[in-house]
Amino acid sequence: MKKTFSFFVFSCLLLIQAVYSQPTGLVHHLMPVPARMEKGNGRFTLTQEFTLAIKGKPHQRIYGGATRMLRRLDGRTGLFFSQAYITSNNTDASASLQITVDRPGKVILNEDESYTLTVTSEKIKLTATTDIGALRGLETILQLVGRDENGYYLPAVTIQDAPRFPWRGLLIDAARHFMPIEVIKRNLDGMAAVKLNVLHWHLTDDQGFRVETNSLPKLHELGSDGQYYTQEQIKEIIQYADSRGIRVVPEFDVPGHATSWFVGYPELASAPGPYTIERKFGIKNPTFDPTKEETYTFLDTFIKEMAALFPDEYLHIGGDENNGKQWKANTQIQAFMKANNLASNHDLQTHFIERALKIVTRYNKKMMGWDEIWQPGITKSIMIQSWRGKKSLFEAARKGYTAILSNGYYIDLAWSTSRHYLIDPVPADADLTDEQKKNILGGEAAMWSELATEETIDSRIWPRTAAIAERFWSPGSVKDVEDMYRRLDIISLQLEEVGLLHEKNYEMMLRRLAGCRDITSLKTLVDVLEPVEDYKRHGKGNILTSFGPYTLVPDAANPDAAVARKFRFLTDQYISSPNEAAAKELTYWLTLWKNNHAAFQQTLKQAPILKDVAPLSQTLSAMSEIGLQAMEHIRTGKTPSASWVETTKKQLEEAKKPQAKCELKVVEGIEKLVQKAAKATT
Amino acid sequence: MKKTFSFFVFSCLLLIQAVYSQPTGLVHHLMPVPARMEKGNGRFTLTQEFTLAIKGKPHQRIYGGATRMLRRLDGRTGLFFSQAYITSNNTDASASLQITVDRPGKVILNEDESYTLTVTSEKIKLTATTDIGALRGLETILQLVGRDENGYYLPAVTIQDAPRFPWRGLLIDAARHFMPIEVIKRNLDGMAAVKLNVLHWHLTDDQGFRVETNSLPKLHELGSDGQYYTQEQIKEIIQYADSRGIRVVPEFDVPGHATSWFVGYPELASAPGPYTIERKFGIKNPTFDPTKEETYTFLDTFIKEMAALFPDEYLHIGGDENNGKQWKANTQIQAFMKANNLASNHDLQTHFIERALKIVTRYNKKMMGWDEIWQPGITKSIMIQSWRGKKSLFEAARKGYTAILSNGYYIDLAWSTSRHYLIDPVPADADLTDEQKKNILGGEAAMWSELATEETIDSRIWPRTAAIAERFWSPGSVKDVEDMYRRLDIISLQLEEVGLLHEKNYEMMLRRLAGCRDITSLKTLVDVLEPVEDYKRHGKGNILTSFGPYTLVPDAANPDAAVARKFRFLTDQYISSPNEAAAKELTYWLTLWKNNHAAFQQTLKQAPILKDVAPLSQTLSAMSEIGLQAMEHIRTGKTPSASWVETTKKQLEEAKKPQAKCELKVVEGIEKLVQKAAKATT
Repeated sequence: MKKTFSFFVFSCLLLIQAVYSQPTGLVHHLMPVPARMEKGNGRFTLTQEFTLAIKGKPHQRIYGGATRMLRRLDGRTGLFFSQAYITSNNTDASASLQITVDRPGKVILNEDESYTLTVTSEKIKLTATTDIGALRGLETILQLVGRDENGYYLPAVTIQDAPRFPWRGLLIDAARHFMPIEVIKRNLDGMAAVKLNVLHWHLTDDQGFRVETNSLPKLHELGSDGQYYTQEQIKEIIQYADSRGIRVVPEFDVPGHATSWFVGYPELASAPGPYTIERKFGIKNPTFDPTKEETYTFLDTFIKEMAALFPDEYLHIGGDENNGKQWKANTQIQAFMKANNLASNHDLQTHFIERALKIVTRYNKKMMGWDEIWQPGITKSIMIQSWRGKKSLFEAARKGYTAILSNGYYIDLAWSTSRHYLIDPVPADADLTDEQKKNILGGEAAMWSELATEETIDSRIWPRTAAIAERFWSPGSVKDVEDMYRRLDIISLQLEEVGLLHEKNYEMMLRRLAGCRDITSLKTLVDVLEPVEDYKRHGKGNILTSFGPYTLVPDAANPDAAVARKFRFLTDQYISSPNEAAAKELTYWLTLWKNNHAAFQQTLKQAPILKDVAPLSQTLSAMSEIGLQAMEHIRTGKTPSASWVETTKKQLEEAKKPQAKCELKVVEGIEKLVQKAAKATT
Repeated sequence: MKKTFSFFVFSCLLLIQAVYSQPTGLVHHLMPVPARMEKGNGRFTLTQEFTLAIKGKPHQRIYGGATRMLRRLDGRTGLFFSQAYITSNNTDASASLQITVDRPGKVILNEDESYTLTVTSEKIKLTATTDIGALRGLETILQLVGRDENGYYLPAVTIQDAPRFPWRGLLIDAARHFMPIEVIKRNLDGMAAVKLNVLHWHLTDDQGFRVETNSLPKLHELGSDGQYYTQEQIKEIIQYADSRGIRVVPEFDVPGHATSWFVGYPELASAPGPYTIERKFGIKNPTFDPTKEETYTFLDTFIKEMAALFPDEYLHIGGDENNGKQWKANTQIQAFMKANNLASNHDLQTHFIERALKIVTRYNKKMMGWDEIWQPGITKSIMIQSWRGKKSLFEAARKGYTAILSNGYYIDLAWSTSRHYLIDPVPADADLTDEQKKNILGGEAAMWSELATEETIDSRIWPRTAAIAERFWSPGSVKDVEDMYRRLDIISLQLEEVGLLHEKNYEMMLRRLAGCRDITSLKTLVDVLEPVEDYKRHGKGNILTSFGPYTLVPDAANPDAAVARKFRFLTDQYISSPNEAAAKELTYWLTLWKNNHAAFQQTLKQAPILKDVAPLSQTLSAMSEIGLQAMEHIRTGKTPSASWVETTKKQLEEAKKPQAKCELKVVEGIEKLVQKAAKATT
């Protein structure tokens, strides 16, 4: 009575014996794909006797890293290893895994992260210039673990690996929705697992000021609803990140995006207060007054304290999306502009940025900001983060500025993994000299949190960000989408090992929506839904605020719904060569979806929260019926009537429209079946 | 092809329309059951217009509590409430929920936690003497929420509630396995949800010293593997608990259970060092030397610092399980005993406890400890925590000592919920005067963490502890086991709302064990397994250490396996009155289990970690076959042969034996079927 196998549920066997093979001839599940990889002969069998030793001159972070790796490996294999905590005493030359490190690594830009890993049937050798490279190699080892009837093993292999880009970041917006430190910690572990090396911590915005600031305490006291990081917690996170070879770059967004600053210090704004914490989203008016000396005195005090708190050489000052409305409305500011020959808001912003740059420089930091901070003549030590796109990015690189790309990696937009994956900061055809290309240091996935809470943020970040991490680390030639998805599905489960909630919160959220344990019909529906892309979630109907609720179907739905994706894949296969097996599988799913609505209506009776999703369930049922009809036409070769084709196309068009802020992601596949049926008869 | 309904999966309808009814005539899902409850007429309908207001003189913690309640309610109903953060400005007399508090509550023993809740179709009124009582009432409101086709609502009701016992605790052992602060936080939220009010934080033991101690830094530096709470974190937890009306009582276990102290300070032990952190479990030898003045100077310094850090009036000094071996072997200690007329280790322990008492008293704390600290003549201000049981508990109470019960509530023993539930600190037949009964202040569930990690601890604590919480809060007459399980199943899902992982880590662990997403056959098996009870997990086979692995089937398996419990319930029903529906259901499950082994063997091919569980799968299959045969005999009334009965009984006996540290919990039900079949023929 239970369906125990279908292509939708990856079977264990399929996972392991996948026929896809890298050019090296080695089937593997590594993500990111290493720079060079060569298959060896045989395997290293993991047993209870497995031990590891560390030699050379590593930074002490390697011991924690090796211990964590050992525990994860033991947890996965259940082998009861004998070693407890790895320390500098563990140098035994007979240990199974020999780690050798030349020198202590520094958690700074451009540090050496390369490693060489050699697995033979006798031994595992991991050598690296720095312990940070060794940490990257330990993650590779964990991903390499295979298993079969004979036990757990590592395949014999030689890997020489190093990243393509030195700046591989994830931006976490802790301002729009506060993210408690456990969220940051588990995501740092996720980042380490896929070799990302920069946490860009967006700490202030209109909706909240999130850092305890001793010199200006009204910032966090009045600007955060009590939801801020203490300096102890900030230090804890920096330490946690350092242990994983990850830099922490803080962002304090000025002069716009600054409402929360003005709750405590309204006199710094360009319009009179009082101000309250912003609860809605979008570009807001409150902006620092760039004409007052008090503004710079204040920023000096603030940046002095933050520069001491955050050790990274970069400090991000935002600088984006200042709408200039407060400036235009302020006669004193207008007079200042006139007196100083500042023709436009743009010039005034430049004036502000240059003053800010002096302060940042005074405290021995390099300034980083969004595209808008880049103005002609500004010092080349600044770093541009491009949200605008490649035109802006390449122009900066040509002019000799260092820059990273975030446009295309905004993971809050709910795009498919493949769409992000295929975007390259420096594509092969980039119109840049080699020297100019070097100015592009990498990129950052950006997790803006208007729509994400501590409960949902993991599933918005993971597993999609693992594919982006591969883009930043692996050679540009690695871009087979199908193989990426194959590996992503495996890596996603491994990411659970470090405590990430992206997989397990899905059914929890469905249970809360359904109000009970029986989520069968709801899951069948949500499995083929995705939240609307881009910023379509905002506007219309209930207005979104920072206080939610974010417990709805579009919050539970995956931005890259695997069941729907696999259905589309299967329809493509079937259409290009119709066969019995694919037909059977398609029929199974279409029948399931067709019949699901009746069960869903039962669920609905006790779950009023699902009322606005009911039309989607109805549509899924109706479209599946159409899909079945189309397949019958294809099977029999019988001509569908012109009116059926016409009506059906209209219904499909209608079914593509979002409802309840979700899209039904199997319609495209069904549409192709209808097209095939219609063609078959012409 | 999918089974969408069976009695094993509670359907939404069943949950809501459950026919069980309290004496009040109101069907409800409250846990703990309130002291008094009266059904009203109609319902209060929840809409987007729902608001709340707070009047009177509450402590400010009520505002955070009300905000959290509002967000959980909004998250569950998806209604988009208009209020963001509740503050002292929210006093609108037209608000739907009116909260009135007489005075600020103190987070101390015996504080007033009573509240009155009145729900009519027009209004919800919550009144309480203290904000702590109001917090308890807010949790009741969240549990009261009902739903049907017309939406979400609260049934009209009047509740007058107050706890039976003032001390309702949960002990979390953060020493054997370190529990990061997020574990403590989410469990504090769980505690608040079921009205527990004491976190007993077991902070030191042989396996780890978990508190940053500035005056004696080698304690945490050398005794913790770097896994300790900073004082900032301790303060954060105390604040977090205070916000939820929960006391924090720290335990520093002396003179035994103290190996980790001696890693940094070996001179305090009763035998020469050096010492290393203990990795194994059980009663260990290292014990403070009670004859040295340095011991008490050291403890004075230590307790002075801790007394300032922890605000609660009680400080727990352990005092348990000192095996006395180091004392016996130390000639200097033996000489001291002789010189001071201390005849036994028991007397020497008393000497130590009395000295410790003086120190604890000096820093204005009351001393608390396990049974062993209670010695004739010791001051009555001490508090006894009884792990030994009621004899010891009642004796203390008779002699005028205050005491709480933990014996019977050791939730690390993997007992069924009902077994804990039916144990009462002061049963109706207790041989105590009313005055003596008052000395028993309540009890504590004790979550010792030898076998629990941050990944598994939630599922060892929850949901079973909700039933224990009911024992401590509700009238002693509330003890209907069937109804407790009905409500527990609902409360368990609500406990997910605060971030607890007890439900969702189950399938995550199964995915890791299986090494892939397809966990169908593994889950079918583990659904009817429980980890072995008591301390049978220790010893034999792989030796358990503090470093694991705790990712195995007994770690994933639930201590009170719901599917197995419901199967046993169904067999009882069927045996007392065989009927077609029950027969069909039993046949379905027995057939599923019988056939499961073939699928499990496929899973096993790629999951060597499951090798030792395979015999259980085989046994489940074989026993299910026997069950089906027995049912056929019952159905047809055909006599089973004597040899079949005899062989079968032997097989069933064999099947009851634990394997891979697990027990198959459906064997008992199948045995009853066999007995019924055998009887039917006699």
